[in-house]
Amino acid sequence: MKLISFASNGHASYGLVTAAGVVDLGRRLPEKTLRELLAAQGLPRAAEFATAPADYALDEVEHLPVIPNPDKIICVGLNYHAHVQETGREETPNPVLFARYAGSQIGQGAALIKPRESDMFDYEGELAVVIGKEGRRIPEDRALGHVAGYACYNDGSVRDWQKHTHQFMPGKTFAGTGGFGPWLVTADEIPDPSRLHLQTRLNGQVVQDTDVSLLITSIPRLINYCSTILPLLPGDVIVSGTPGGVGARRNPPLWMRDGDVCEVEISGIGILRNPVRNEA
Amino acid sequence: MKLISFASNGHASYGLVTAAGVVDLGRRLPEKTLRELLAAQGLPRAAEFATAPADYALDEVEHLPVIPNPDKIICVGLNYHAHVQETGREETPNPVLFARYAGSQIGQGAALIKPRESDMFDYEGELAVVIGKEGRRIPEDRALGHVAGYACYNDGSVRDWQKHTHQFMPGKTFAGTGGFGPWLVTADEIPDPSRLHLQTRLNGQVVQDTDVSLLITSIPRLINYCSTILPLLPGDVIVSGTPGGVGARRNPPLWMRDGDVCEVEISGIGILRNPVRNEA
Repeated sequence: MKLISFASNGHASYGLVTAAGVVDLGRRLPEKTLRELLAAQGLPRAAEFATAPADYALDEVEHLPVIPNPDKIICVGLNYHAHVQETGREETPNPVLFARYAGSQIGQGAALIKPRESDMFDYEGELAVVIGKEGRRIPEDRALGHVAGYACYNDGSVRDWQKHTHQFMPGKTFAGTGGFGPWLVTADEIPDPSRLHLQTRLNGQVVQDTDVSLLITSIPRLINYCSTILPLLPGDVIVSGTPGGVGARRNPPLWMRDGDVCEVEISGIGILRNPVRNEA
Repeated sequence: MKLISFASNGHASYGLVTAAGVVDLGRRLPEKTLRELLAAQGLPRAAEFATAPADYALDEVEHLPVIPNPDKIICVGLNYHAHVQETGREETPNPVLFARYAGSQIGQGAALIKPRESDMFDYEGELAVVIGKEGRRIPEDRALGHVAGYACYNDGSVRDWQKHTHQFMPGKTFAGTGGFGPWLVTADEIPDPSRLHLQTRLNGQVVQDTDVSLLITSIPRLINYCSTILPLLPGDVIVSGTPGGVGARRNPPLWMRDGDVCEVEISGIGILRNPVRNEA
């Protein structure tokens, strides 16, 4: 099942993506957001609309970030060997975590915004894990049972601001830099996320390409570690880390510029596609 | 004007603290949370109840974090010279920012929770700045006009988890570690936050003591820097940094333990007081 958050005529809703288009669930179910649907364990009710007539064509709606308003977006840094190597850093026994704020996110098709303050705007293709069931200190062997589904994420990074100090967050949460889409693919369709394959393309050129099995800290271990700190809630997002090939570590560096198109494709999920625009 | 978020009989609300007690604003105004009141620019309407009869005695309500549900909690690290020195780090031209998630916060009188995973639970007394007016790239000379008010914050830190990697966040957002109270003092009563004085006490012993004028990055500059990254919204919280004297840098180290009482007092605001408890 594929679920999106979207806006139509300025009204925010969420829906089911079928072969026919988008079935507006916000007008059919009591829950008004996809996060609320997940919190209400509402996926089985959503599935009942799989054959309902579509309300919109898929290209007719404005895509919002898959979860526009998560309680937590937990980003993982340096979680593929090839990326750790290109940064010249050392691997750590525990995952490198930092935050992104919800207001920095955009949906499928929306523009990634290169801020005025920087010309060092970089892509980071990643697998996003969306939590479906609350839990604290979730054991690894039950962690995937807490996942609602998966999506593509572009953890757009303003590299000079990321390096203003040793803490990454400022460069990781500029407005309009977090691409999250194209939709949530529910976990029943992806029994083992480590078997997925991820590719990032800038203007069609492959710039990142990895098996998700190469994650240093696996998805179950990330869920265990994060939920030890505080409860994970339905709608929370874990952005699991980017592989090698980021623009900042190329020679010469490869930055995203106005007019570019960046795509993050993950097997079994789809393609997150965003144009890049200079901030107005 | 002093404003609190609180619960009574399991019902969450917010109110005005007067000499007589707590005037429940959640039942008198259309806005249901203090964050909503700030977003609606509702402080003048709140002030009209300054002489209303109290609904509760102050010690009768359960205090919630001043803003239980901010869109953003932005924490500032290493922002007093004495604290930078004790950590052995270098000063940076830009502020060190990391995040805390809202679910990690507690209010006045609630227990700071030492998690099972660590015995290195440390206090950090800080001045919290609560935003009242949305803005992006707010100029320094107009920054204080975007502040709704100020409160005390105890940025309780799980030091070993903070040092699992170079990113601080895991040790800074454990459940029950962020004390935020005792109330919001509106900015009209504090025209210049740099003139405040901050003191942290553990079981009555003074462990931190500073003039807020000693902040490396001032409150106006923090507001300018943070709002350059993405818009600051009403209810957002900037936790401005802790002075020297943290427990981790003492010899021997001084950790918070079950049964302790930690207080953060700021002149012109009041005393945030929390007992410390081992996690059940």
